[in-house]
Amino acid sequence: MAKKNAFYAQSGGVTAVINASACGVIETARQHKQHIAKVYAGHNGIIGALTEELIDTSKETARTIAALKHTPSGAFGSCRYKLKSIEQNLAEYERLIEVFKAHNIGYFFYNGGGDSADTCLKISQLSERMGYPIQAIHIPKTVDNDLPITDNCPGFGSVAKYVAVSTKEASLDVASMCATSTKVFILEVMGRHAGWIAAAGGLAAQQEGDAPHIILFPEIAFNKEKFLRKVQQSVKKHGFCTIVASEGAQYKDGTFLADAGTVDAFGHKQLGGVAPTLANMVKQELGFKYHWALADYLQRSARHIASACDVEQAYAVGKAAVEMALAGKNAVMPAIIRGKSKRYTWSIQEAPLSKVANVERMMPRNFISRDGFNITEKAREYLAPLIQGEDYPPYKNGVPDYATLKKVFVAKKLKQTFKV
Amino acid sequence: MAKKNAFYAQSGGVTAVINASACGVIETARQHKQHIAKVYAGHNGIIGALTEELIDTSKETARTIAALKHTPSGAFGSCRYKLKSIEQNLAEYERLIEVFKAHNIGYFFYNGGGDSADTCLKISQLSERMGYPIQAIHIPKTVDNDLPITDNCPGFGSVAKYVAVSTKEASLDVASMCATSTKVFILEVMGRHAGWIAAAGGLAAQQEGDAPHIILFPEIAFNKEKFLRKVQQSVKKHGFCTIVASEGAQYKDGTFLADAGTVDAFGHKQLGGVAPTLANMVKQELGFKYHWALADYLQRSARHIASACDVEQAYAVGKAAVEMALAGKNAVMPAIIRGKSKRYTWSIQEAPLSKVANVERMMPRNFISRDGFNITEKAREYLAPLIQGEDYPPYKNGVPDYATLKKVFVAKKLKQTFKV
Repeated sequence: MAKKNAFYAQSGGVTAVINASACGVIETARQHKQHIAKVYAGHNGIIGALTEELIDTSKETARTIAALKHTPSGAFGSCRYKLKSIEQNLAEYERLIEVFKAHNIGYFFYNGGGDSADTCLKISQLSERMGYPIQAIHIPKTVDNDLPITDNCPGFGSVAKYVAVSTKEASLDVASMCATSTKVFILEVMGRHAGWIAAAGGLAAQQEGDAPHIILFPEIAFNKEKFLRKVQQSVKKHGFCTIVASEGAQYKDGTFLADAGTVDAFGHKQLGGVAPTLANMVKQELGFKYHWALADYLQRSARHIASACDVEQAYAVGKAAVEMALAGKNAVMPAIIRGKSKRYTWSIQEAPLSKVANVERMMPRNFISRDGFNITEKAREYLAPLIQGEDYPPYKNGVPDYATLKKVFVAKKLKQTFKV
Repeated sequence: MAKKNAFYAQSGGVTAVINASACGVIETARQHKQHIAKVYAGHNGIIGALTEELIDTSKETARTIAALKHTPSGAFGSCRYKLKSIEQNLAEYERLIEVFKAHNIGYFFYNGGGDSADTCLKISQLSERMGYPIQAIHIPKTVDNDLPITDNCPGFGSVAKYVAVSTKEASLDVASMCATSTKVFILEVMGRHAGWIAAAGGLAAQQEGDAPHIILFPEIAFNKEKFLRKVQQSVKKHGFCTIVASEGAQYKDGTFLADAGTVDAFGHKQLGGVAPTLANMVKQELGFKYHWALADYLQRSARHIASACDVEQAYAVGKAAVEMALAGKNAVMPAIIRGKSKRYTWSIQEAPLSKVANVERMMPRNFISRDGFNITEKAREYLAPLIQGEDYPPYKNGVPDYATLKKVFVAKKLKQTFKV
């Protein structure tokens, strides 16, 4: 095998463990220097390849690379940038090939979600179409947990743990004050299209009646009357009601609750928030005192409470990607496959990218309780292993000691610049 | 000393470590059974004393009581209920004395903030005025960090750590995506009257230029032009701007930003949120893509990321309260006193309640940078020790294993009930 460099890029919304995958890629490549010379990381994802802004990871110490495993967000920078089809934008692909050629890149590792899987598949096809040999391997990552074939997506387990822990803690707070104060608490979580993250809030409950009492999924059409009735029942029975609401919660006609018409003092339409919308509903119709929280980026960057299982899997898919490349694979993704035994086990297997790209995995209906407001035992069995174990980062001065990269750029070789 | 029972109650907004104080009280009392027979805890705070709903803590195992040290929120229930003056509502005080007499209570431990210190002082005066001997000791607790004499208030250090960690993590997220996505991130935190909690966000920065780039304090009048200019400068210089905003941020005339006129679709005024108000401002005036988070109860219940220093101090003030009672003290509060050496040390000393009640400690102006948008080195020196150390709870099934009390109620002895 000829000695080539590798290109690695992070794509889309970042997670608490995407850098653990980067760590897996770089550490594994370093163990195979006879085949992979250097790993160049795209500055701000694929944009870095187009603009020839390549970070030379060989300039980072082993200690720094190891520290990526406990560092959240995208250390090399990420972006939301989807390549069009080769027919639609040939120039972009020609540019990529130019950059790859100039820097002797033979391996393309793309760390992202569904859109990136599609981009990665297109890159893998360049080899044939454009006569430049490159192996493209997709490394799964998405808090949305919506990639097919893989049992779960690295990044999801840690958000799930954050949401479960936060739901449990905030509910204890409400429970202790509800006799004279707040009776309804709403936590808004991510998940525009699928309720996986909201579902994880259900793991806060250890037994029947525990909070959360209501989970709102995008998959279940929101019914105001049913919802308010359920809130009232919960307050009557438990003294309070905790609600975990997906940002994607929507009415039957597909209108998001978050878009349901809040305007500011100037009459401008406000980008909502499901939580305040629900809170107003509760206040106006039931008169209960409420509080609400919006976790936003806090949930997907919360490396301090990452799932150990998630960290391990994120590293493993990075490592496996390099191993697959070394084995001559192209257009594949290392997928996490769950064992069949009752005790949770997992292994990494190869999935063809053609079956991954552009397929969105929704939450099965039997993961949601009949009334649509909670998770089932089946969902719990699926979700629970993914939040197991704690993997604490080291601390310095009371805050996590996250990696800081030197980010030494590879000298540019191309005369032409490229505007994205 | 005659053998009496003790009454313990939690008051006001709960914290991640108020139960650690409860643990300190109960464990210490158990070591002095020759003087303190039993500790009865008020169900839902002082209301439990008025309604004779007393939880017999002697029915809880040593293991459960020990677990309180790692359990957030108020395990016995808390309330917001301020006793009026004896002149204004004699009936309440007479009722308290009745309940105390009926249950042979000679020690009153009240775990709360400024209002509770005032209540505690009033109870201590009952002894003289109403001829019933009782020793009243106040145990400091408040995330607001606004009690005088004590160097800091148990509960604050853990919120501070949560805010510092969250600010750091979310900022890494924004930094990694800002080239093509969100440029401004706003985290709204508690602190209606004082900026202590917002200030703690400043601890996320390890060096000049690190996020957060802007902190908004209630102490500094909000100036829209100056604010927007600072946001723009920050985006230009760092590529993004992280803002930590106190919920109490206000204009010069005292109007809260959170009240600045958002109405819902029906024209009802909405209880705002500083973060969305600022986000709209940024969007409309500068056009930057933004995200915002509202931590709400998550911040004060986040026992999973509690400060070890805070947990230790919370326990220590509970323990010291019992020791002061045993030493015959009345109308005092164990205060945390900072040592004078450069290395952080602290000890517990007695503070007279008359000097604690109704005094609010604001943040000194020299803790806030000249431009009003950040903390000074002096603030950092004060704040940093309070978030030191991690004190992780045990986990079960991926979520913290928090204490669950049996809550065995003491048999009522009074014929009359009391309505609060």
